[in-house]
Amino acid sequence: MERVPLERKVLSENDRIAADLRARFAEHNILCLNLISSPGSGKTSLLERTLESFDQGERVALLTGDIQTENDAKRLARFGFPVKQITTGGTCHLDARMIERALQDWLLEDIDLLFIENVGNLVCPSTYDLGESAKLVVLSVTEGEDKPLKYPSIFFKSQLLILNKIDLLPYVPFDIAVAEENARVVHHDMEIVRLSCQSREGLTEWLAWLDRKRVRSRTATPVS
Amino acid sequence: MERVPLERKVLSENDRIAADLRARFAEHNILCLNLISSPGSGKTSLLERTLESFDQGERVALLTGDIQTENDAKRLARFGFPVKQITTGGTCHLDARMIERALQDWLLEDIDLLFIENVGNLVCPSTYDLGESAKLVVLSVTEGEDKPLKYPSIFFKSQLLILNKIDLLPYVPFDIAVAEENARVVHHDMEIVRLSCQSREGLTEWLAWLDRKRVRSRTATPVS
Repeated sequence: MERVPLERKVLSENDRIAADLRARFAEHNILCLNLISSPGSGKTSLLERTLESFDQGERVALLTGDIQTENDAKRLARFGFPVKQITTGGTCHLDARMIERALQDWLLEDIDLLFIENVGNLVCPSTYDLGESAKLVVLSVTEGEDKPLKYPSIFFKSQLLILNKIDLLPYVPFDIAVAEENARVVHHDMEIVRLSCQSREGLTEWLAWLDRKRVRSRTATPVS
Repeated sequence: MERVPLERKVLSENDRIAADLRARFAEHNILCLNLISSPGSGKTSLLERTLESFDQGERVALLTGDIQTENDAKRLARFGFPVKQITTGGTCHLDARMIERALQDWLLEDIDLLFIENVGNLVCPSTYDLGESAKLVVLSVTEGEDKPLKYPSIFFKSQLLILNKIDLLPYVPFDIAVAEENARVVHHDMEIVRLSCQSREGLTEWLAWLDRKRVRSRTATPVS
């Protein structure tokens, strides 16, 4: 059990940097959202649909994490907003230091909304605070209704659950009511949006959620 | 960089136990398969289809890992073979010590085939040797063709790739030829089976692969 104190130290160092990031985001009224899911649940597709709904004047920026490849940054850069890939080279999550470094050559005063797309992993990213305003968990309906019970930490910590790929519901054995019930066993007040990036069903609801958060973020009192 | 030596120590301790397990499996001519995938790719469904194809006399046993819940063990126990759930309580992977402990009250001489279903995570489980004869990676066609490039470690280390949920191919933007090409960029000789646990397409091919491995395992020279 030698490992525990060192892990604690690594996490408390992370928390210190995350607290600093959070203060800087608050100072610039930035809404920062940390998107977490299994690999292939559709985080990047969700961001594509989101970006294409924005006017070019939107002050949005994106950081996207992967173990290898710049695929996601390439997909997202097409929309004309600042995007940076963070390649972790083996590490299974993003940490606050990676975010701090990636932001170094961006001016925070130019950003209102910062999306962080975490490494595809439903476990480890939930432990690392990135200074975000909120965590979002994306669950694809192909993954099974029991995932909130099996991976409770990320469902407990996320403000919003996006139930993605609902266009596939007719073809998979997935009871969406049971999935939502399971999510609310873990997180009583969880907000849930049912969405499909293919049919665009639920997109309006997701964009409305985002707008409400952005209004709240702009009217929040900056941290002194 | 303080963390590296301790991680190395944890991993070398794991390797020592894994080597011991591997020797014991060889002594009893046990084929041990370590199944790894993202959450919800269909590992448990694959095991259900496999177990239901077996005669009751088959000397098969299963260990199934999850962070929380005994759901998978319950699903698998219906087939009458010995099953044990390993609940990691937060840890993102199985390690060799967990396997060693779980096997303590089973007689290895009664087992020919041992399935280990790892925690749903495409990253961390690839680092931990469990003494298995082979790793298998399961990728659902709903997850996107680029996953072998984004998570190369597990695709490099797995002997077999099961491309699962091919019944969903008509409904998802997934080019199966590209996925296979990407897998073979990372792992040139990778064996691949295309499968659906719903339509049972590819099941014969998977069971034939398993049979070939089992024959090889029975005729292998035990470790002295």
